[in-house]
Amino acid sequence: MNLRIGVIGTGAIGEDHIRRITNVITGARVVALSDLNVNRAKNLAKKYDVKFYVTGEEVIEAAEVDAVVIASWDPTHAQYVAASIKAGKFVLCEKPLATSKEDCKRIVEAELAGGKQLVQVGFMRRFDSGYRQLKACIESGEIGNPLMLHCVHRNPTPGPKHTTEMSIKNSVIHEIDVLRWLLGEDFKTAQVLLPKSSSLAENGLRDPQIVLLETQSGVRIDIESFVSCQYGYDVQCEVVGETGTIRLPDPAAVVMRSHGKLSYEIFSDWSDRFVEAYNIEFQQWVDGVKLGVVAGPTAWDGYAACITADACTEAREKGTIVPITMPQCSAFYGR
Amino acid sequence: MNLRIGVIGTGAIGEDHIRRITNVITGARVVALSDLNVNRAKNLAKKYDVKFYVTGEEVIEAAEVDAVVIASWDPTHAQYVAASIKAGKFVLCEKPLATSKEDCKRIVEAELAGGKQLVQVGFMRRFDSGYRQLKACIESGEIGNPLMLHCVHRNPTPGPKHTTEMSIKNSVIHEIDVLRWLLGEDFKTAQVLLPKSSSLAENGLRDPQIVLLETQSGVRIDIESFVSCQYGYDVQCEVVGETGTIRLPDPAAVVMRSHGKLSYEIFSDWSDRFVEAYNIEFQQWVDGVKLGVVAGPTAWDGYAACITADACTEAREKGTIVPITMPQCSAFYGR
Amino acid sequence: MNLRIGVIGTGAIGEDHIRRITNVITGARVVALSDLNVNRAKNLAKKYDVKFYVTGEEVIEAAEVDAVVIASWDPTHAQYVAASIKAGKFVLCEKPLATSKEDCKRIVEAELAGGKQLVQVGFMRRFDSGYRQLKACIESGEIGNPLMLHCVHRNPTPGPKHTTEMSIKNSVIHEIDVLRWLLGEDFKTAQVLLPKSSSLAENGLRDPQIVLLETQSGVRIDIESFVSCQYGYDVQCEVVGETGTIRLPDPAAVVMRSHGKLSYEIFSDWSDRFVEAYNIEFQQWVDGVKLGVVAGPTAWDGYAACITADACTEAREKGTIVPITMPQCSAFYGR
Amino acid sequence: MNLRIGVIGTGAIGEDHIRRITNVITGARVVALSDLNVNRAKNLAKKYDVKFYVTGEEVIEAAEVDAVVIASWDPTHAQYVAASIKAGKFVLCEKPLATSKEDCKRIVEAELAGGKQLVQVGFMRRFDSGYRQLKACIESGEIGNPLMLHCVHRNPTPGPKHTTEMSIKNSVIHEIDVLRWLLGEDFKTAQVLLPKSSSLAENGLRDPQIVLLETQSGVRIDIESFVSCQYGYDVQCEVVGETGTIRLPDPAAVVMRSHGKLSYEIFSDWSDRFVEAYNIEFQQWVDGVKLGVVAGPTAWDGYAACITADACTEAREKGTIVPITMPQCSAFYGR
Repeated sequence: MNLRIGVIGTGAIGEDHIRRITNVITGARVVALSDLNVNRAKNLAKKYDVKFYVTGEEVIEAAEVDAVVIASWDPTHAQYVAASIKAGKFVLCEKPLATSKEDCKRIVEAELAGGKQLVQVGFMRRFDSGYRQLKACIESGEIGNPLMLHCVHRNPTPGPKHTTEMSIKNSVIHEIDVLRWLLGEDFKTAQVLLPKSSSLAENGLRDPQIVLLETQSGVRIDIESFVSCQYGYDVQCEVVGETGTIRLPDPAAVVMRSHGKLSYEIFSDWSDRFVEAYNIEFQQWVDGVKLGVVAGPTAWDGYAACITADACTEAREKGTIVPITMPQCSAFYGR
Repeated sequence: MNLRIGVIGTGAIGEDHIRRITNVITGARVVALSDLNVNRAKNLAKKYDVKFYVTGEEVIEAAEVDAVVIASWDPTHAQYVAASIKAGKFVLCEKPLATSKEDCKRIVEAELAGGKQLVQVGFMRRFDSGYRQLKACIESGEIGNPLMLHCVHRNPTPGPKHTTEMSIKNSVIHEIDVLRWLLGEDFKTAQVLLPKSSSLAENGLRDPQIVLLETQSGVRIDIESFVSCQYGYDVQCEVVGETGTIRLPDPAAVVMRSHGKLSYEIFSDWSDRFVEAYNIEFQQWVDGVKLGVVAGPTAWDGYAACITADACTEAREKGTIVPITMPQCSAFYGR
Repeated sequence: MNLRIGVIGTGAIGEDHIRRITNVITGARVVALSDLNVNRAKNLAKKYDVKFYVTGEEVIEAAEVDAVVIASWDPTHAQYVAASIKAGKFVLCEKPLATSKEDCKRIVEAELAGGKQLVQVGFMRRFDSGYRQLKACIESGEIGNPLMLHCVHRNPTPGPKHTTEMSIKNSVIHEIDVLRWLLGEDFKTAQVLLPKSSSLAENGLRDPQIVLLETQSGVRIDIESFVSCQYGYDVQCEVVGETGTIRLPDPAAVVMRSHGKLSYEIFSDWSDRFVEAYNIEFQQWVDGVKLGVVAGPTAWDGYAACITADACTEAREKGTIVPITMPQCSAFYGR
Repeated sequence: MNLRIGVIGTGAIGEDHIRRITNVITGARVVALSDLNVNRAKNLAKKYDVKFYVTGEEVIEAAEVDAVVIASWDPTHAQYVAASIKAGKFVLCEKPLATSKEDCKRIVEAELAGGKQLVQVGFMRRFDSGYRQLKACIESGEIGNPLMLHCVHRNPTPGPKHTTEMSIKNSVIHEIDVLRWLLGEDFKTAQVLLPKSSSLAENGLRDPQIVLLETQSGVRIDIESFVSCQYGYDVQCEVVGETGTIRLPDPAAVVMRSHGKLSYEIFSDWSDRFVEAYNIEFQQWVDGVKLGVVAGPTAWDGYAACITADACTEAREKGTIVPITMPQCSAFYGR
């Protein structure tokens, strides 16, 4: 039986997820969609032979919808997640879970009150083969206890209307989640360094930034965020343990020797870099939902990421080291 | 609508394909199977809720079967492919298409007589991301016309009952096909060099061997075949063009620094190395069959590979340079 | 004509320099030496057919000595450098120039008073081929203005009696100098992060440490210092510019495929890693001295490094961000 | 005491060796030189304050000359080496030792008759750090017995007047010598494959060529020679043993990420690629001569390389597999 999915938000990412569910993932199909951009949504509905609804709530409540994917504008995530919980339907929400930690908290409380985990947050890096190898390697003990992580997250150019704040909230938040998962612990303090800005960073954007995190056990993390690095989309992660180090590999690419150089190509786009991670994320989500379980990052993970990102923002604004206080996690979330 | 597939042969590869069609590929499901090992086949039929048939021919003729996958013992391939053509059903046959060029020729003639391409041969490397990048790069002209290819195909240890002849017929045949496809031309001569055998090659096996091929336009290819290299499963391919070279990358793997070395892991198994290629091969085959077309290597490609492999075997046995005469290819196969 | 050199201090490094001057460098020879360990010094004097003196001052004043190399115990550097200046002789002093910035300042003032540059400090990394390539690349503009540097300095195990303070004063000081030279500017602030210590760091040593430096123009530098990393001696440096990044290469080493891994060896010792840099440093020093010029890091560079290292130490002890105030550099030192 | 060297032939390589002996090598100086191009030679004599002689023989016989370096036109090598033997002086002769195997044989016989090894041939690759690591690794047994070698020798463009024959006699001869040395055995057969020529190879040059060699124990070697590869000077060597493989590394070069690519530079010139090997070759030759021994490739090695290159040339011309018959080596040459 195919899982019948309703998709809320059919912008670039939403459309890509519809294509993915239709052409790549097995055991699921899209049956309903909605978007504020009605024309675009209706065209997609026609193309994929899917029912169009005017509101996200209608999608969530539709009888033919088994589970929901949210890929709408960030500020609307919280309301659609809440409605999905209320409807008792599994929901995969693109990050962020919500734009404020208060909203995250309300979602967590609603899910707890409902007594069943229904929410997964779209932190796809946990499904990337490289990060999975890193995690397996850490857990094998081959490099001893992790002591430091050196991370890099670069985009060639920022999206339109990108702000200094968004570098952390929309971009570094991926590292915040995946490093929590890699290390299995929460963060204790945050600090943000502001190097000289690139002359190619426009409109007053502070870029690059360096986020410094400390975990509760004392592991030290530095994350370079550079959204106008020009040369490509580049994600790096080195874990330094007591007896060795491991490093995320670049994607496999043909090695060329020509014009006096050995070279290989670097992706220019995050969606190419993580396309396999997205595919695995969706396949495992669909398989899990059919079994009645959430197999990926939970609402609590979304909440924890939001708290951490907020602390980073505060640290950047104040120029100080900011303590991160994480609320006690319910056993419900299995910690 | 799901494509309903019958699988003939449920050994290791056949079972893996059943799993693949069921859990990975979208738009298809297995509905029937058969195998000489009846117990094993019946257990799989139960596990995957699929109908068991005693003979491959019954699978092919079953009304509920839309298309056929052949993963049985090599000498049985020809008869099942012929039966599939006769039944007018699309068929994906694991390599080799047949164990003799006469059988290959009969298949090609039967398909031609039927007037419709139905057969695809399981040369999965054409679907590997690295080889696809190589082909795109050659066609872009970035390295000029190809002049030479240096290839390596190593296994840690040979399978049981592996013979000197099988190194070419079962292993190098992958290079034979994928290089024909990469270069878009057939071969003119074959020669085989026999280096000193490894002391770890058992039972009189001549291992390694070096196959030298010359294409019709004069491109020179050397292929090292080494089935008892001990250290891992390793496939390499360097294309040397007039102005540059390109090389198949190793699969992306975490880079470790420990114990005085930088290192990364090499796969030990071909099925891990090419798992993505198999997935893409099957998805594209399913998608193509639904559109009524064969989107991969054809019966003619299987025939051409068999002729070339036979010439290599003759070259090894005689110790001479053997000319390769390729029959005229019908326009039916689009050349 | 050979430059006649007196060597003060004949421990491991001193002896290596005597060997280097004798067997590797052209245009120079050792004619005199001294060491507190008289037996060892006398044996070396006999082996290399060189005159032994009881005190460093006697070496410096000896008529047959044209120039002096200081490789004695760190706290004695200042007095021998001062004596060399007084004697009007060129002197190559192993880092550090002195163990306090007050001593460094006195040396600078004495050299200024003498009116002639005579002192070179043994920061050999400036002569390493990799760092030279980095500098050439920065100056070419190929990666735009540098914005950030990510550096790593790891030793397998600390020397005997290594202290938390020495990680900066004796080890990170190499980065302090070479990054000043790479970027052509001084530092503005220092901060030190203390990750969870490795369980393999003995005797209360805080290891690893992360040194954060900010240059006067706002470039941000992070330097991981890890003196008990176990796996090897490893120096890394990545420069992130506005349009691209460059990275110090690992030394060229044979690439092996065996036992399921691709690997290459990492040096276990700094003297192997930088042997070529030392050779070039000495050859260029000898060539320069013959022309009457100091062609490497000056007394002022030694002073600046000391001031910066002291600020880092203060930052570590206080746990705060410490401003670095650099005195005005005289035109005498060409800034 | 400095070894006093006379240099015959002051073209590009000869001048480079004068510079090397003067500025890089310790324990030697040039005292005499000659060249057919008298003006050029006189200018160099003035620049380096060295005595000019009209003929090479005069240089060899000059009382002030302790040892001779020959870097003249290939066809003159034999006469100058013979004269050096006659004069009882050590001589380092650029490859080839002579342009015919008959001349090589006469040199070997003259040296034998003289009863003392005096001749070293300028096969500098034996002194390259990468090849030395390969040899050490083979001898350590880490990869088991060598079975195959895959080699590449590429130049961006051929020198003026380069001929098809010279690709082997002047270029592949480096592989012939260094592989004999790596493996410690002679060759049994030669074959040459002629791929389609590059359209960029001018004046009827057959380029690339592939040389196939078989050692007496059955190791198989393929050497790609491509003198108009356009992109750079590139030397590769992979040794495949029974349990693993080793590969010559590319020279260490800064790794850049820019413009959508990761890249590093490849040398464009052999003299840059092997500059360190030349330096070590000369230093060890000087050190050896002072001790009265030849520490590098001997006249016999030059003879063996010439015999092998001649067999390759015959194999190319006839298009057949040519047996290589090596004369019995005298114990004088330590085999």
